[in-house]
Amino acid sequence: MNPAPLYVVGLGPGDAALLTPQAAAMLDAAQTIVGYRLYVDLISPERLRGKNVVTTGMRREADRCNAAIDAALAGSPTAVVCSGDAGIYGMSGLIFELLEARDLADAVPVTIAPGVPAVCAAAALLGAPLMHDFACVSLSDLLTPWERIEQRLEAALAADFVLALYNPRSKGRDWQLDRALELARRHRTPETPVGLVHKAYRPDQQTLIRPLRDFCGTDADMLSLLIIGNTTTRVTAERMVTPRGYAVTSGA
Amino acid sequence: MNPAPLYVVGLGPGDAALLTPQAAAMLDAAQTIVGYRLYVDLISPERLRGKNVVTTGMRREADRCNAAIDAALAGSPTAVVCSGDAGIYGMSGLIFELLEARDLADAVPVTIAPGVPAVCAAAALLGAPLMHDFACVSLSDLLTPWERIEQRLEAALAADFVLALYNPRSKGRDWQLDRALELARRHRTPETPVGLVHKAYRPDQQTLIRPLRDFCGTDADMLSLLIIGNTTTRVTAERMVTPRGYAVTSGA
Repeated sequence: MNPAPLYVVGLGPGDAALLTPQAAAMLDAAQTIVGYRLYVDLISPERLRGKNVVTTGMRREADRCNAAIDAALAGSPTAVVCSGDAGIYGMSGLIFELLEARDLADAVPVTIAPGVPAVCAAAALLGAPLMHDFACVSLSDLLTPWERIEQRLEAALAADFVLALYNPRSKGRDWQLDRALELARRHRTPETPVGLVHKAYRPDQQTLIRPLRDFCGTDADMLSLLIIGNTTTRVTAERMVTPRGYAVTSGA
Repeated sequence: MNPAPLYVVGLGPGDAALLTPQAAAMLDAAQTIVGYRLYVDLISPERLRGKNVVTTGMRREADRCNAAIDAALAGSPTAVVCSGDAGIYGMSGLIFELLEARDLADAVPVTIAPGVPAVCAAAALLGAPLMHDFACVSLSDLLTPWERIEQRLEAALAADFVLALYNPRSKGRDWQLDRALELARRHRTPETPVGLVHKAYRPDQQTLIRPLRDFCGTDADMLSLLIIGNTTTRVTAERMVTPRGYAVTSGA
């Protein structure tokens, strides 16, 4: 049997209103849906009906991706789902890594469906904190040495990037965010706005904007995303706003 | 008359298949659509029918945003449209800035619709070049001094971020990308993959993956986005892939 298409689908933050028609069409075309349980739960039950659904727990990414590759090889059109975008801390890279390792890079036709990433969802709810140059850093040191992560935080803060922090805290990683905030305090004034969005566009969504001075690591968890402003970011009417540029001219 | 809602809508890269249902609903609810001509042209003519459409040329962002604020104040539900996401080099920040300057921050109800940003669209077409920590930098020095931009490029390259370059080149800005590539060559090997996507998900879309050694500034234009790999990015089966982490363990 010929291999079937393998789709890597960014679901967006979770709300069906932010699922692109392309992603929806790929989910509908798939016979097999593979993903971390929490992400598969973002898909409406009607959309999953009659499909072969393969879920596993956290940290079993390679198992999931191999299962998806096997399903596509066996002729079942397959969608691997990710929350947010498929390519930002998502599954698209691992799919290509595993296809290469299994010498199947040319054997399985892969299409990536980009999605609304968590950083854009959070930004839209906070106001306009990105606007200008920004950096995304994951605080998870499971696959990256902490020294490297810290080097990136330092570099981004020193060069006045707006800084988005993915995976700020989990049960097993409880000091990394405090360390990141400590670094931020060296490069930003105490008044710099920090925005936190918990479960963007899902039930129990929460947003919080607080000066860096008052922000606590315990405000965040695994389902939160943090945005630390650059030196120009300010709060206006309870929104976190980074002006577009440094040399604002009238009428520009 | 009470002010009407003001929507700031990220259209995604252009293809209707990547327009979120939320964004589509806001466009449909709006009586006035405001945007740069090139972006308004991304919306289907049926969707614009019967609406008051306000377009201006480039660099008239403040005029456009003020016109949108005026329309909403006059009671017309209004959508300001941006390509990609509404908050990444988009219009959301300028809307808040102008509302504040006009002392209208609490007077006009603003909702931001996040979209699939250009960087995710480009990444999906190139393979999986982001995957890990990345930075977005605009090479436009219209509103930001070049020294600041160069400082950010240096910082992101030195800390081994994947680096996405927005606005790499225009008729009036023809040396900035060459300078950015020169900086990249100091921090990356000549084999480092550079991906370029021109008009992602639009007619005449083009993608190009080339080693940094062979990449020319003239390969890009204003409708292109560039992604420079980090030190681990490689090409497999004509895809640009950045592995997820540095400490890959079997079965992780």
